[in-house]
Amino acid sequence: MSVARIAVVAGDGIGTEVTAQARKVIDAVLPGVDYNEYDLGARLYHRTGEVLPASVQTELAGHDAILLGAIGDPSVPPGVLERGLLLKLRFDFDQYVNLRPSKLWPGTTSPLAGVKPGEIDMVVVREGTEGLYVGAGGVLHKDTPAEIATEESLNTRHGVERVIRDAFARAQRRDRRHVTLVHKTNVLTHAGNLWSRAFAAVAAEFPEVTTEYQHIDAASMFMVSNPQRFDVVVTDNLFGDILTDIAAAVTGGIGMAASGSVNPERKFPSTFEPVHGSAPDIAGKGIADPAAAILSAALLLEHLGRHAEAARVTEAVAAEVASRAPGAALRTDEVGDRVAAAL
Amino acid sequence: MSVARIAVVAGDGIGTEVTAQARKVIDAVLPGVDYNEYDLGARLYHRTGEVLPASVQTELAGHDAILLGAIGDPSVPPGVLERGLLLKLRFDFDQYVNLRPSKLWPGTTSPLAGVKPGEIDMVVVREGTEGLYVGAGGVLHKDTPAEIATEESLNTRHGVERVIRDAFARAQRRDRRHVTLVHKTNVLTHAGNLWSRAFAAVAAEFPEVTTEYQHIDAASMFMVSNPQRFDVVVTDNLFGDILTDIAAAVTGGIGMAASGSVNPERKFPSTFEPVHGSAPDIAGKGIADPAAAILSAALLLEHLGRHAEAARVTEAVAAEVASRAPGAALRTDEVGDRVAAAL
Ligand SMILES: CC(C)[C@H](C(=O)O)[C@@H](O)C(=O)O
Ligand SMILES: CC(C)[C@H](C(=O)O)[C@@H](O)C(=O)O
Repeated sequence: MSVARIAVVAGDGIGTEVTAQARKVIDAVLPGVDYNEYDLGARLYHRTGEVLPASVQTELAGHDAILLGAIGDPSVPPGVLERGLLLKLRFDFDQYVNLRPSKLWPGTTSPLAGVKPGEIDMVVVREGTEGLYVGAGGVLHKDTPAEIATEESLNTRHGVERVIRDAFARAQRRDRRHVTLVHKTNVLTHAGNLWSRAFAAVAAEFPEVTTEYQHIDAASMFMVSNPQRFDVVVTDNLFGDILTDIAAAVTGGIGMAASGSVNPERKFPSTFEPVHGSAPDIAGKGIADPAAAILSAALLLEHLGRHAEAARVTEAVAAEVASRAPGAALRTDEVGDRVAAAL
Repeated sequence: MSVARIAVVAGDGIGTEVTAQARKVIDAVLPGVDYNEYDLGARLYHRTGEVLPASVQTELAGHDAILLGAIGDPSVPPGVLERGLLLKLRFDFDQYVNLRPSKLWPGTTSPLAGVKPGEIDMVVVREGTEGLYVGAGGVLHKDTPAEIATEESLNTRHGVERVIRDAFARAQRRDRRHVTLVHKTNVLTHAGNLWSRAFAAVAAEFPEVTTEYQHIDAASMFMVSNPQRFDVVVTDNLFGDILTDIAAAVTGGIGMAASGSVNPERKFPSTFEPVHGSAPDIAGKGIADPAAAILSAALLLEHLGRHAEAARVTEAVAAEVASRAPGAALRTDEVGDRVAAAL
């Protein structure tokens, strides 16, 4: 019997290259994993018009986790692959915890003056199954002066409370034990009110965790002026999308930004993928940094309960990055080799 | 006859202090302005429960412009003053161009390493009367497990096209003549599609202006990693709220961030206010930086067609800021005096 069944969706552009390194590293630390590859993304779409065939989705559901590279190509209309694949998996597999740690690693440089490695260490817990991402909305009177387009944000107490509880549970296990709720309660008063009340209710269950609230605009500013202040951040789907890209930027770009779309109950498989995209401009050149993909594999191992293995992979990536000669050219497979060899 | 009728809403916290300096500077450059003061904000709310009495709104409508300090106090529930006053003025006075220039001024320091004064110079044209700010939404089954809260983003072709056209017209008058549309077309496909089509249609009217599209998450990242690339940015109400705070952060904080909520047709008065809030922690101490309020007054003068006066005020503020001794304590009224004296 295999130690774990992992579906691999390498996807488009540099997705293939970085995912190969992530697999290499998983194999080095946890031999005996059973992989199944699925060719999804722009290629399949252009060949067949399909994005996620129902049979493939059923097969994916039979795995312990999904290792994803990158999905997207300029040749595909916006939304088709995002809605049809990435978001569909998040929604159908109830991946309500979208987990995005951000750390300023030794060997990396923040664009912020005077901020030193080790000083930024946060995790954003982004809601993954609700909000403006549900796709509710439409267009009326298209291409006439009377045209109107709507988008609706749906927020349930059920969905909001469970992700907030997950954030508090994570904060409880961290040193600083601090959770910041980010929303826009002064404008989005309906949803903001639900989030605030759910936050207060869950906070009462975790008396050891300190709390704070920030509006999304203020939080975005603090991410730049004082990112050190954040420990765990919990926020809605869209605000989390934006905040995690700022967090990635201040920790030196998306080169090290890993993410997991997690169903904590493990009723469905969770997806682990780098925050970066398919980067068509550098695809096929073997120069993409696989660090974020490998760190995503570490999140995957953690999710499967392989805590020691996850920690070893994370440390090996950190050591590899710290050992890089400044300005030296990077080869995707060499990074993977070095990390695997260190394990 | 007075040269202009300006309604002054100094508001809460440091609002009073910084607005006094803005008036001082307007008087120095344009004598004969007729001011009417309106005591709106937390004080009025606590005294009478009113936020914007109908009679006051009617009076405000009779002015050429509104000079606003800051509105908001922790003692007032979130949304009450924002929705009832700030947003009500934006909506009722059809202030659809929310104008937010960001510049890294000589004498100020960006938190970004290696970015020098003069390198960042952009203006965000934020839509001001639509999107998620309309207040459409509600809560059902409050405080039960079945609770749901919604927020709806409404976008009309009329509203989107006019603000995009304003952004292109501004770009046309600038050196770089570049407009970046920011949205999230891959997820908010309905509204994103309307924005994209309207953008393409208006772009065709301005063949000399180059264009670009960025998702809000990528744009937020670029604001940190490469803010130099932006010239004019046009975006929706919520994305603009977030982006302008990041733009303020990378240009050294909200100390210099001015804004105008503009009705370009001048059918209704436009409001000019610093981006910063009422800052209750430093209110009454005379240490708030009035630069953003004075720069907002310059936007007001510009809007009234007083181009020479606006330019002189902006230059005087820039000179004052450049002359500040690093680390020296700042006195609100002294800054105002120095700027006024230079005119
Ligand atoms: C590709 C897109 C749908 C996605 C999102 O908006 O969630 C991406 O930006 C991300 O952050 O994972
Ligand atoms: C106070 C609030 C309603 C307002 C907004 O969200 O527009 C503020 O953040 C701003 O940017 O002017």
